[in-house]
Amino acid sequence: MEKNELLYEGKAKRIYATDETGVLWVEYKDSATAFNGVKKSEITGKGILNNEISSLIFANLQEMGIESHFIRKISETEQLVKQVSIIPLEVVTRNVIAGSLAKRLGIEEGTPLKKPVVEFYYKNDDLGDPLITEDHIGILEIASLEEVNLLRNKALKINEVLSDLFLQLGIRLVDFKLEFGKDANGEILLADEISPDTCRLWDVNTNEKLDKDVFRRDLGDLTTVYTEILNRLKGETAHV
Amino acid sequence: MEKNELLYEGKAKRIYATDETGVLWVEYKDSATAFNGVKKSEITGKGILNNEISSLIFANLQEMGIESHFIRKISETEQLVKQVSIIPLEVVTRNVIAGSLAKRLGIEEGTPLKKPVVEFYYKNDDLGDPLITEDHIGILEIASLEEVNLLRNKALKINEVLSDLFLQLGIRLVDFKLEFGKDANGEILLADEISPDTCRLWDVNTNEKLDKDVFRRDLGDLTTVYTEILNRLKGETAHV
Repeated sequence: MEKNELLYEGKAKRIYATDETGVLWVEYKDSATAFNGVKKSEITGKGILNNEISSLIFANLQEMGIESHFIRKISETEQLVKQVSIIPLEVVTRNVIAGSLAKRLGIEEGTPLKKPVVEFYYKNDDLGDPLITEDHIGILEIASLEEVNLLRNKALKINEVLSDLFLQLGIRLVDFKLEFGKDANGEILLADEISPDTCRLWDVNTNEKLDKDVFRRDLGDLTTVYTEILNRLKGETAHV
Repeated sequence: MEKNELLYEGKAKRIYATDETGVLWVEYKDSATAFNGVKKSEITGKGILNNEISSLIFANLQEMGIESHFIRKISETEQLVKQVSIIPLEVVTRNVIAGSLAKRLGIEEGTPLKKPVVEFYYKNDDLGDPLITEDHIGILEIASLEEVNLLRNKALKINEVLSDLFLQLGIRLVDFKLEFGKDANGEILLADEISPDTCRLWDVNTNEKLDKDVFRRDLGDLTTVYTEILNRLKGETAHV
């Protein structure tokens, strides 16, 4: 497998073509960004941590029957993935009120939801990734109503699996953001990454934040908490 | 009928109790406000115009079988309405992309929608009346899913009637905001007001804005365009 030209550089990853059709080469960067890129920092080791965490989670999901673009980890900071055309939606699933939802609804962060909710944000940096409704998705012609329902159901299924996985590690999955893409056959596949950059993860006993909020809110050292997540995932030790 | 104590003062109206159970006394103010009260002005005659416009529109809706809280106009600036408990939702129906939706989606104002869309905003000044989803309405326990569907269907029906009415007057109903309330029997009734404060109204031939955007965007004299709306409503002249 050969790494070819850079196709896309995002805030946290670089995506390269390869010499194999339909396979992309992903490199996790050491950049941490928040608030639509307004706050940013280089954090040595972050790329290694998120590549390993995301690879472990995608592999775990696959074992549970949830397909994704993930093929395999090929180095400390790199993985191979199936090429998909990313659907410009951030699909956010929430079990506990936190972050922007706490602000939007005026409800205290940490309030548990009676049932999980799925939200759609329009993945558009210039517009600040706004919350949009299913009707807005139709206006933007991003996805059909059928596809929106499919995304919602996939997100809820992944939420069940991930919530169970993290709970076994003594972690509450508060909320998380997924991205999906369409492969060459038009099939919708889970894509992007799943890591403490894209999930809110709270220790079930202490409520300590073990995710990017540590960086967003200057609560401590990012690599320390990401390493904690990785260690729990690797050890699969019961912490509850 | 006697006017009793002030129950509520909003940005554009004062609501008083009366000596009759279930009947409120509404006084339209001369205040114009925009951007959640950041921009405001006193505009002599605005209360008279909106009281008359809103009364004519509610009466017209009633003729078309759409009930509201409106009972009757009792003076230049006052009307009697049925007492309802306001549901804290701004129900916005759109036929053409304008205002906040143009900004949210990055689509040019004036782009027609293939079909009308209904949006719900949480009526909460402190939070800036944010867009919310049906799931959020459930979290806030504002309305049941059944009630949300009822509100949506009522809004779409009112949109049909009002779009036809305004089109006969040479006006395109671009979008509008409704509020609903529950009466003593728990029945959901159209409430608040329908006026150029709460609708975007564009001349079908010139696209001239005949609504509060004139004030929001400093495009001209508010009373001139509100008077134009009133005259067309009273004359019911065909302008197309």
